Amino acid sequence: MPVNLVATPAAELHPVPGVRWGIAEAGIRKANRKDLAVLLLDEGTSVGAVFTQNRFCAAPVQICREHLSKSSGIRAMLINTGNANAGTGHDGLSRAQSTCMALAQALNLAPEQILPFSTGVIMEPLPSDRIVAGLPAALADARADNWANAAEAIMTTDTVPKAFSTRITLGDAPVTITGISKGAGMIRPNMATMLGFLATDACVSQDLMAQLARELAEASFNRITIDGDTSTNDSFVVVASNQAGHVPVTSWDSADGQALRAGMMHIAQQLAQAIVRDGEGATKFITVRIEGGKTGEECRQVAYAIAHSPLVKTAFFASDPNLGRILAAVGYAGIADLDQTKIDLYLDGVLVAKEGGRHADYVEADGQRVMKQSEITVRVVLGRGDAIDTVWTCDLSYDYVKINADYRS
Amino acid sequence: MPVNLVATPAAELHPVPGVRWGIAEAGIRKANRKDLAVLLLDEGTSVGAVFTQNRFCAAPVQICREHLSKSSGIRAMLINTGNANAGTGHDGLSRAQSTCMALAQALNLAPEQILPFSTGVIMEPLPSDRIVAGLPAALADARADNWANAAEAIMTTDTVPKAFSTRITLGDAPVTITGISKGAGMIRPNMATMLGFLATDACVSQDLMAQLARELAEASFNRITIDGDTSTNDSFVVVASNQAGHVPVTSWDSADGQALRAGMMHIAQQLAQAIVRDGEGATKFITVRIEGGKTGEECRQVAYAIAHSPLVKTAFFASDPNLGRILAAVGYAGIADLDQTKIDLYLDGVLVAKEGGRHADYVEADGQRVMKQSEITVRVVLGRGDAIDTVWTCDLSYDYVKINADYRS
Repeated sequence: MPVNLVATPAAELHPVPGVRWGIAEAGIRKANRKDLAVLLLDEGTSVGAVFTQNRFCAAPVQICREHLSKSSGIRAMLINTGNANAGTGHDGLSRAQSTCMALAQALNLAPEQILPFSTGVIMEPLPSDRIVAGLPAALADARADNWANAAEAIMTTDTVPKAFSTRITLGDAPVTITGISKGAGMIRPNMATMLGFLATDACVSQDLMAQLARELAEASFNRITIDGDTSTNDSFVVVASNQAGHVPVTSWDSADGQALRAGMMHIAQQLAQAIVRDGEGATKFITVRIEGGKTGEECRQVAYAIAHSPLVKTAFFASDPNLGRILAAVGYAGIADLDQTKIDLYLDGVLVAKEGGRHADYVEADGQRVMKQSEITVRVVLGRGDAIDTVWTCDLSYDYVKINADYRS
Repeated sequence: MPVNLVATPAAELHPVPGVRWGIAEAGIRKANRKDLAVLLLDEGTSVGAVFTQNRFCAAPVQICREHLSKSSGIRAMLINTGNANAGTGHDGLSRAQSTCMALAQALNLAPEQILPFSTGVIMEPLPSDRIVAGLPAALADARADNWANAAEAIMTTDTVPKAFSTRITLGDAPVTITGISKGAGMIRPNMATMLGFLATDACVSQDLMAQLARELAEASFNRITIDGDTSTNDSFVVVASNQAGHVPVTSWDSADGQALRAGMMHIAQQLAQAIVRDGEGATKFITVRIEGGKTGEECRQVAYAIAHSPLVKTAFFASDPNLGRILAAVGYAGIADLDQTKIDLYLDGVLVAKEGGRHADYVEADGQRVMKQSEITVRVVLGRGDAIDTVWTCDLSYDYVKINADYRS
């Protein structure tokens, strides 16, 4: 059961001029399932992207990096589910390349103008023949109002398709921002088994989009964690088709630049939080906010220690205000000179621990009340400085184990 | 169901001359349960200890450190379960001190000669009055052949009491080594919610025992992980009563020193591995051995990434050879210049992945066969150097979630 997350109706996902999706059922792992998507971009589209920091990155990630470094004219993307094409060595690289070549041929492009993405089981050979065989159907389906189907086509263990859309105005021109994401497990900072595609028709240069991809990921997908596992395939792509007709954005510090970035950030954070809300087995959405650190880095360190602790996560699942587990996680987060007598812990507005010990006024009924909510904010004040950072996570339930013990069957 | 672990019969736990245990039911958290133990040491006993590296360390840990730095004449230890006296601030310190004072008074010792230990729920006030009230019964029970009861008295979520014993010969003198441990969750490197007490009647100085405690912990309790949570209360104590009558050990490099250390290490590793075998919800005992690292440190980094991965652990629970998850964990372990094309992965004797890709001869039936075993060795060869290290862990099952969601109820 996802936490306060329902699919956005297709009618509310605004088409982005210059951007089309085509979907097909290619039978990659299971029959009768949308498992192949092509994203077609008009000429002149700017593309920025960030990828997993996992050193065991998948073949498609390696190829994406290579194609982005070679070409400034990315015109199509090719996404399959059911197989991650990771841990597949040289064979995996050549299979991914062969799918890019097939799509390039069909579109009369160079293979370097294609970016491939795969998600699914690791260490099994990519059925590239089935992908290639599915391309004509996907291309025939290509249209601008296909975002809802695209969101569905990239799902793996997701239970809800994740798509959000908004409109802003730059100058007098209406500008559309629409994005989709997938991911439900193997989610942690520095990306996750997540794919994210965010498109706008705004007018922005290639260089600015590369910078934007990093900034958006840093404050959205890199601030979520479900189980602490970093995937081999994480990819987040932002595209701008440059068709909205306004004066091009040439700096993120300009008024238009700030407005566009804010709109893109809004959708990126919705897409990222949707992944946590649909986290494998999730029953609660937890915001972990750390204040009073010396640096943002140490705030994140503490936030992730809390967000990754199986003991903290099972306590949330049980709605059990066994909140000492949070203090224990703060203590082992790795801040060598941490002074426990300076630490305050809040659960929403409830002061649970003050100066490292149980607060005199705290009664368990107050903690219990907050723990029963479906959305909870854990706030820890470190008393060391002015830095603040926030991470979003979910609880750990029976269903997480069930889903991951049964995933391949 | 613990993995290949049964309680050692009481008759096989050899008494250690100079060392007595007394047990009582003090009603600390639940009635009719052994929850209080005192360990009485004859005068002249050498004591070494190591404690949690959690900065939110519990009150008793703070007091142990202080008493060990002040006194070279530790004569008694006081252990309670049911309450960790952690996250309890100044009140926790004074309550722990009051229990030390009561025991000191009863034994005609200084409070600094007592070491206190607590394990159980965090952030609740220690019921020190009940502990003090239970002391006379515990003292009346004190005897040398009480190790089995002591192992039972320190259990929390443990399902099997953990005690091991051996005898060696130094010179012509028979020397006994007997120890107990507890811990089943919140277990990770740098100690865990574990308590360990290891005693010998060998003749060793105080300084050598302090060094031995660190060395033993490093190769035993600091090489196990269940859920990656480091407890606030971890403590491992080694004592030598100096009553065995042999020529005292003055160096760990001497023949006698090596023999004694090997015997102590054997029991320490059995005690540590028993904690993993009885890990909360554990159904498998997993040895993670990393070879070919540049340093032992990076081998451990990779080993813990694998051992902490919820995806790897649920795959073991399911006996599912979804072994790409192990490669993914290797990739995100944090070695920046890792070359995936040099990595081999073995499951027991089965070569699963070679040079970063699925091995041509690997068939899933071979992986399946190993995954069904109750004891499995994961071996990763990094191809970077000659360093090797090993970590022991268990799988992640429904019961882990159940135990930790229900722990306080």
